[in-house]
Amino acid sequence: MNDQGILVVISGFSGAGKGTLIKAMLERHHNYALSISATTRKPREGEEDGREYFFVTRERFEQMIEEGQLIEYAQYVNNYYGTPRQYVFQQMADGKDVILEIEIQGALKIKERFPEALLLFVTPPSADELKRRLVGRGTETMDVIHQRLHRAADEAEGITSYDYILINDEIDACVEAMHQLIQAQHRKVSSSLDFIEQMRSELKAI
Amino acid sequence: MNDQGILVVISGFSGAGKGTLIKAMLERHHNYALSISATTRKPREGEEDGREYFFVTRERFEQMIEEGQLIEYAQYVNNYYGTPRQYVFQQMADGKDVILEIEIQGALKIKERFPEALLLFVTPPSADELKRRLVGRGTETMDVIHQRLHRAADEAEGITSYDYILINDEIDACVEAMHQLIQAQHRKVSSSLDFIEQMRSELKAI
Repeated sequence: MNDQGILVVISGFSGAGKGTLIKAMLERHHNYALSISATTRKPREGEEDGREYFFVTRERFEQMIEEGQLIEYAQYVNNYYGTPRQYVFQQMADGKDVILEIEIQGALKIKERFPEALLLFVTPPSADELKRRLVGRGTETMDVIHQRLHRAADEAEGITSYDYILINDEIDACVEAMHQLIQAQHRKVSSSLDFIEQMRSELKAI
Repeated sequence: MNDQGILVVISGFSGAGKGTLIKAMLERHHNYALSISATTRKPREGEEDGREYFFVTRERFEQMIEEGQLIEYAQYVNNYYGTPRQYVFQQMADGKDVILEIEIQGALKIKERFPEALLLFVTPPSADELKRRLVGRGTETMDVIHQRLHRAADEAEGITSYDYILINDEIDACVEAMHQLIQAQHRKVSSSLDFIEQMRSELKAI
């Protein structure tokens, strides 16, 4: 339709499975680029600089803010998280649809600055299922699980600012639904103004 | 997501193939209902009352307007065309996505009254291809073809009022794209407010 890629923001409850969905979508479809956030938090075991995050110092991060190198940033629990501008715009210019997996606070800033961005919210089919999945991981104490559920209750207040909601009931179906939703954006009239203009002038010339 | 069907308006240039697309979509997928317009124009050979149109008198049509039985109506070349309300709302309440194949004038009225309606515009990949298809039909004089092309040039001015544009390049791909676009509407946050509300109250109660 046009050559410019789409900016896609994916958020969701912790435990909704958004990481797994995004990974599967990127493996199956090759028109995507995953944006990597910069953060001041310390790498966890197994995390690699430039893979999960760009790990930077607080001074470096504040310099990036000052120099306008981030398209959004936010603070959680005393750490900064932000989206470096250059990679996103470069990939979009190359026609890739760029995926940002970010929290609601950053998502709303993106929507404000880039109204054409597509905001998707991933949720399990029910709160009980969310709890079941968090417990099922077996990696967290019940205290942490309750914290996550309380945070989910807060996050639920923001869902209506998103464009679409994806219920992650069955992973394969959800990956395809996500892919279809994103590709549908390319057919939006607002993404097709060049084509429409060309059609108009061709029709006038006939 | 929710049980209510979606109101879908499909327009497009004469020769874009929208009739064929809609027919194929309804054959392949069974969640659709096709709205049948009422008109005061005379049936053409092979047309059946209640299949292509409900053929009514001018008096009857004006009575339907007066009684609020039409969700939109318009006049073309001295004939009325309109969409009967009851069938559309009944089918939507039953969870069917209702397809209206109507002209741009009616489409804009629908969007005004039902902002949640989905407006799709079908076009061939180029003006040359549109001309080629119209000529290829072999059923119309070059005069009529030129009239249609001039009308297409006028219609092209209205495309930007639609939500999505569907380029009918290859019919099977276009049918599936149309189906996906419509189904994506069910995932819109505005179509999912009941689910979101339920999720919120469940999360608060945990």
